[in-house]
Amino acid sequence: MDHDAVSGGEMQAPTNITIKGILSLLMQSIDEKHKRNVISLGMGDPSSYSCFHAPSVAQEAVTDALKSDKFNGYSPTVGLPQTRRAIAQYLSRDLPYQLSSDDVFITSGCTQAIDVALAMLARPGANIMLPKPGFPIYELCAAFRGIEVRHFDLLPEKGWEVDLDAIESLADHNTVALVIINPGNPCGNVYSYQHLKRIAETAVKIKTLIIADEVYGHLAFGRNPFVAMGVFGSKAPVITLGSLSKRWIVPGWRLGWFVTSDPSGVFRQPKTVERIKKYFDILGGTATFIQAAVPRIIEQTEEVFFRNTIKTLKHSSDICCERIKEISCIICPHKPEGSMAVMLKLNLSLLDGISDDIDFCFKLAKEESVIVLPGTAVGLKDWIRLTFAVDPALLEEALGRVKSFCQRHASRVV
Amino acid sequence: MDHDAVSGGEMQAPTNITIKGILSLLMQSIDEKHKRNVISLGMGDPSSYSCFHAPSVAQEAVTDALKSDKFNGYSPTVGLPQTRRAIAQYLSRDLPYQLSSDDVFITSGCTQAIDVALAMLARPGANIMLPKPGFPIYELCAAFRGIEVRHFDLLPEKGWEVDLDAIESLADHNTVALVIINPGNPCGNVYSYQHLKRIAETAVKIKTLIIADEVYGHLAFGRNPFVAMGVFGSKAPVITLGSLSKRWIVPGWRLGWFVTSDPSGVFRQPKTVERIKKYFDILGGTATFIQAAVPRIIEQTEEVFFRNTIKTLKHSSDICCERIKEISCIICPHKPEGSMAVMLKLNLSLLDGISDDIDFCFKLAKEESVIVLPGTAVGLKDWIRLTFAVDPALLEEALGRVKSFCQRHASRVV
Repeated sequence: MDHDAVSGGEMQAPTNITIKGILSLLMQSIDEKHKRNVISLGMGDPSSYSCFHAPSVAQEAVTDALKSDKFNGYSPTVGLPQTRRAIAQYLSRDLPYQLSSDDVFITSGCTQAIDVALAMLARPGANIMLPKPGFPIYELCAAFRGIEVRHFDLLPEKGWEVDLDAIESLADHNTVALVIINPGNPCGNVYSYQHLKRIAETAVKIKTLIIADEVYGHLAFGRNPFVAMGVFGSKAPVITLGSLSKRWIVPGWRLGWFVTSDPSGVFRQPKTVERIKKYFDILGGTATFIQAAVPRIIEQTEEVFFRNTIKTLKHSSDICCERIKEISCIICPHKPEGSMAVMLKLNLSLLDGISDDIDFCFKLAKEESVIVLPGTAVGLKDWIRLTFAVDPALLEEALGRVKSFCQRHASRVV
Repeated sequence: MDHDAVSGGEMQAPTNITIKGILSLLMQSIDEKHKRNVISLGMGDPSSYSCFHAPSVAQEAVTDALKSDKFNGYSPTVGLPQTRRAIAQYLSRDLPYQLSSDDVFITSGCTQAIDVALAMLARPGANIMLPKPGFPIYELCAAFRGIEVRHFDLLPEKGWEVDLDAIESLADHNTVALVIINPGNPCGNVYSYQHLKRIAETAVKIKTLIIADEVYGHLAFGRNPFVAMGVFGSKAPVITLGSLSKRWIVPGWRLGWFVTSDPSGVFRQPKTVERIKKYFDILGGTATFIQAAVPRIIEQTEEVFFRNTIKTLKHSSDICCERIKEISCIICPHKPEGSMAVMLKLNLSLLDGISDDIDFCFKLAKEESVIVLPGTAVGLKDWIRLTFAVDPALLEEALGRVKSFCQRHASRVV
């Protein structure tokens, strides 16, 4: 081959927008002298705020595992047995059946779990059903693994429930999976037991499996408690994806899981297990000593830590909704009930000289040093995604700036 | 689709043998009552032996980074800037030019770096040239990424040098890369400057790039010093793969790198960079606090630590060669000069009732509780791969058992 083959001639990058890509462009657009003042409501990583601090037992458990000198070596590529067991037990608390260690595969955060799920399902002609708005890593993985994407809507007027009719009409015999993110990113919704049940029934009807992204599992503070999709695993096979990242506020530790929540044993056929195991052989995995700390982290993190996180998230989501109410050109169609983000609709007709959500975000960044994610990045043009998992004082400050910005750009003719 | 699609009907596992797979079968074949006595010379992970202990500064650096509370959050998916810079500087010491931070991408160990390299080069019809014997993760990645494998021989009678003529005759315009593992796994060879230069010239002739797997970089204790393939990066573009795993004896920390050693800038075209960056967005990456420790680990690890490792490796490779000389049915065609492994040829005609290398290894495991890797796993039937990075006393003991085994199975007719 010619060197052109590595230099872009044949190797195109997927055209997908990535959240990190667009946030980094927004950051770059801010003048150097204003960078100190930047407040980012762009990403679901609250680990830098003291009100969202990882539990100290987690840090101790990792330090102790490291210092024990027992975990400098390779782990099995699917994960340490004790780590798989601890996660199986942790997730089984939410299920009417017991997961076994063999159902659990340790990944480098939930991101890698997403890619494993899609890579395992990829085959010529395959398509996957993704929510809109959604989490663009799914679209990017699908592009790299050669899977066609078909989007179904989440319905803001119904609390961001899944448009189940759309799924039925979009699916065909090449549909390999239906992706559900619950608690929802980017919408902050938490699905009811009944809605999850209907999703499972739809999956059965279209003969597909469900990928349940529960990276925000248990981060629910509204009407609906968190219900694991795996509860319906005996109806439709479920692949549950998750991580320590959000609930334990350690996204940088890269400890995630790919779990077959599948009491009917569809995934337990020897060839499937072999294929998954071999795929894990090429992944690289997560640090052995971090894995080794997981049983203690799960066992010893106190309920009060989780309750405090929930309280803080509820408080900051309340601030968010209150402040947004004061801004006429931004509408919150559904108060967040979980996760760390909310989707807000822009009424551009109330603004002068702002052409769309991307324009809004770039001008906001430049003028107010506040970063929010254009809805386009998650599939909804002229919306924005806002992460409220931020220090409450900073959130107030940021939303004050958003308000000033909107007032300054308010259209003269009302 | 039907559930069969996930249950093995259409999703076949690649048929590749994996090292971990076969070692685990060997381990399973050993009687429970003998498991205490097992000595494994099967895998390149010496971290459990006190004579191969990670430097204490490395552990301190990681603990401090974790305790600083600054690195619980996400890192950029390509790696922390300071980590990329430190690795660029570290690798540049061996090169006639300077790598920049932008050339370095942090991976979850060298395993993930291998997969990134192959995934980046995959396209319909692509083939890759892999050494035989080699490291089977390459074959497995190629299978998952849809790249055809073409093997060239390493020549035991020439110190495991590459059969360059074979490469020229095997390559075509769809050859996307030529893989070189130096210092060699599984052969323990270290290539001379001149041989590496000829490899680069061959790559130029067949118009392909070189993937240089230098996970055992600097672990050389024979005639030839370690020379980085990137030295010839201005002739043929080189992708250098490596990690902290072997030289710092922390394979479980999962800190590797994918580096474009490419002063002519073939990889620096915007589309190529964009494609690589987007691929890293789906990988998951390595723990932020471990990354954060890398600059200090590289800066503060003392030369004496590296010298001691080399001394220990040389000592155990000497033990290995001496003991093997006493066993007539096992031939060492080339004394190891680097890495942690050596390939040994079985003379099965001197053994009774041993049909091949796999039979040899299973019977050895069962009768003597010693695990060595059948050559078949790395592409050479009726050879074995032996890892000598083991506590010297245990190595003596293990090779004593191998000798007993061979004596017991010696053929009666000589």
